[in-house]
Amino acid sequence: MLEERQLHINKILQKMQESQVGACLVSTPVNIYYVLGRIINGYTYLDVDGHLLVFVRRPADLKASDLDVADDCFFPVRKPEQLPALLAEKGLSQPSTLWIEGEEMPQSQWARLSACFASSRILNGSHALRQARSVKTAREQQLLRESARLHEAVYRRIPEVFRPGMTERELVVEIEYLMRKGGCLGLFRTYGNDMEAHMGSLLSGDNAAVSSPYDFALGGAGHPSNPIGATDTPIREGQSILIDMCGNFTGYMDDLSRCYSVGRLSEAAYRAHQTALEVQAFIQEQLRPGNVCEDIYNGALDIVRRAGLADRFMGKAQQAHFVGHGTGLVINELPVLAPKMKDVLQAGMVLAVEPKIIIDGVGAVGTENTFIVTEQGGDKLATLPDEIVDLLDY
Amino acid sequence: MLEERQLHINKILQKMQESQVGACLVSTPVNIYYVLGRIINGYTYLDVDGHLLVFVRRPADLKASDLDVADDCFFPVRKPEQLPALLAEKGLSQPSTLWIEGEEMPQSQWARLSACFASSRILNGSHALRQARSVKTAREQQLLRESARLHEAVYRRIPEVFRPGMTERELVVEIEYLMRKGGCLGLFRTYGNDMEAHMGSLLSGDNAAVSSPYDFALGGAGHPSNPIGATDTPIREGQSILIDMCGNFTGYMDDLSRCYSVGRLSEAAYRAHQTALEVQAFIQEQLRPGNVCEDIYNGALDIVRRAGLADRFMGKAQQAHFVGHGTGLVINELPVLAPKMKDVLQAGMVLAVEPKIIIDGVGAVGTENTFIVTEQGGDKLATLPDEIVDLLDY
Repeated sequence: MLEERQLHINKILQKMQESQVGACLVSTPVNIYYVLGRIINGYTYLDVDGHLLVFVRRPADLKASDLDVADDCFFPVRKPEQLPALLAEKGLSQPSTLWIEGEEMPQSQWARLSACFASSRILNGSHALRQARSVKTAREQQLLRESARLHEAVYRRIPEVFRPGMTERELVVEIEYLMRKGGCLGLFRTYGNDMEAHMGSLLSGDNAAVSSPYDFALGGAGHPSNPIGATDTPIREGQSILIDMCGNFTGYMDDLSRCYSVGRLSEAAYRAHQTALEVQAFIQEQLRPGNVCEDIYNGALDIVRRAGLADRFMGKAQQAHFVGHGTGLVINELPVLAPKMKDVLQAGMVLAVEPKIIIDGVGAVGTENTFIVTEQGGDKLATLPDEIVDLLDY
Repeated sequence: MLEERQLHINKILQKMQESQVGACLVSTPVNIYYVLGRIINGYTYLDVDGHLLVFVRRPADLKASDLDVADDCFFPVRKPEQLPALLAEKGLSQPSTLWIEGEEMPQSQWARLSACFASSRILNGSHALRQARSVKTAREQQLLRESARLHEAVYRRIPEVFRPGMTERELVVEIEYLMRKGGCLGLFRTYGNDMEAHMGSLLSGDNAAVSSPYDFALGGAGHPSNPIGATDTPIREGQSILIDMCGNFTGYMDDLSRCYSVGRLSEAAYRAHQTALEVQAFIQEQLRPGNVCEDIYNGALDIVRRAGLADRFMGKAQQAHFVGHGTGLVINELPVLAPKMKDVLQAGMVLAVEPKIIIDGVGAVGTENTFIVTEQGGDKLATLPDEIVDLLDY
């Protein structure tokens, strides 16, 4: 695991060099886990020369050897004000510029750390860290593959737990139970304050078109305190059921949606589903190093426009303006397939692609798969067919 | 619901008056929900004269009437930079001092809002908002009672789903399934970056003493990516099982722990459990308006010290320095029963009290209940007995 850690650190060092930043201090669980392979409450400090120092608040009994770091790089601390003296003790001067996590860290923490590093210029390193995380190592890719394998094994069993007359919530609870028994860790990690959900979403019929305050691909009324996904509405014949659960089986999350039906859907729904599959095939072909995110988004939108479905693509009254997103330690990693996104794809990026279309009176159709960017196009992690499965046929 | 909203707003207005703050701008889901009774992506602006303005980014099709606000107080926006002009249009000048959520809002957002309100002095209103939320209205108390009622109904069924030889994870998955079927919303909302967990925690045997980076009462190894609670270790005879799930059945979360055993535990374990119940009885008696949090904590610690259990109270290698915490829209509301906490209890505060003790070779014993502060002492929400239930006797 030391080799793996070094690969992660090297990615961050490269970003620091490109931005001429002297050091990086991370303290949020996801970035700590990315650097150390373990979550601590405290700080990891990485300078551009590759020194890694760990400042641990909790667990109180953690030892340097538990983290595979040298004793003289490991410091139990109570508060961030101790950091400058400990750096000095180690013979390290305060960096001229220091990255901290300005997109994740509350302002009060930022202000406190800024005061500790008063002689450093403090910059927001969040985006660069997200960029570093966006290109996955071989081991990270393996963990994502493992999540996807376990995830699709659960989805294959969805028809077993469906019973006619169920509400959305009753069905999603059965699926969550399959997920957890299948090894899902449950925790749904998102980046930013714009998303919060329990394990995932299930949408049938008109609920698929309900706008949500959150930044997910589709909405759903959910509960007033968490307005996303399933409600207590019964699922009716002739409706689609779009199931989109977070595949956190390994700490690395794949994303997978599949469409089911209760009996036959309208012909318009099947046609729209085929359009979504065309979009997915187009994007899969484009998921190669060098391609630009906004171009892929625009190409996808062209297909949808030609099919006359642009006004119900990724929502109806409210349309999400993306068709894919990075995934990994959080469900919404970089890059994003969206307008104006100039990010250039690199081999090893992992993206969830989720073309979804709303059909009045039916619900949402479409699919979602997680792909690794390769020279040969997107490597699709799941083998589960993308076709709509009729739950009454099962 | 308009009356209820006004009660919440009045609490915030009172805090603003006490602090001589001109206006308060909230944007995090929990505070938005507290003010509006509904989650939006956007901002609510409340000035000290009681004007409430709502700036909505999403849902895109939301109307003023959906929120029961006047049309001229409702503004669809794309970005915070639009706010000053909209305030001016409404005839409101920028406040001399403005609260924003400095403990929750990322620094980047804080900086952006500060630039929008360049003529205002920006202050961190997070703590005051938490104080406002800490005293619950009659309706909030009712929602917490309802959560506790549904929560304990699930716990009564725990013996039904236990099978000898189960792992911790297998048992917690069965309990989660009961919780969800019993109406739990699943989402586990916490405040701050120090806690993240899926639905709750189950600890048996030595896992109860494993220190965690998180700020929960006890730890547990969990998974490296989320080191808290259950593992794949089988639960063995002679061990205790401490079950602590988040009771989010209504948007308002009660907190409830119960101790189970597989066969008989050691006599030391039963004695320690009785000590925990003494602590609970002492605290329940103290949960009256006017009492001071640190005094209650110190009194609890005296009981534990007299029983010779101070070195294993709330953990062993790492001990949590609190014995109770507010609960409501997040699991860790104010106030906290902890050293140096000078907060004075008020009627209507709601606290989870969780004396827990580690017994070597057995696991954790103790209990947790949610209480409302009243003139007659803590009103205990659950009626479920606090005694250790032997799962083999069932």
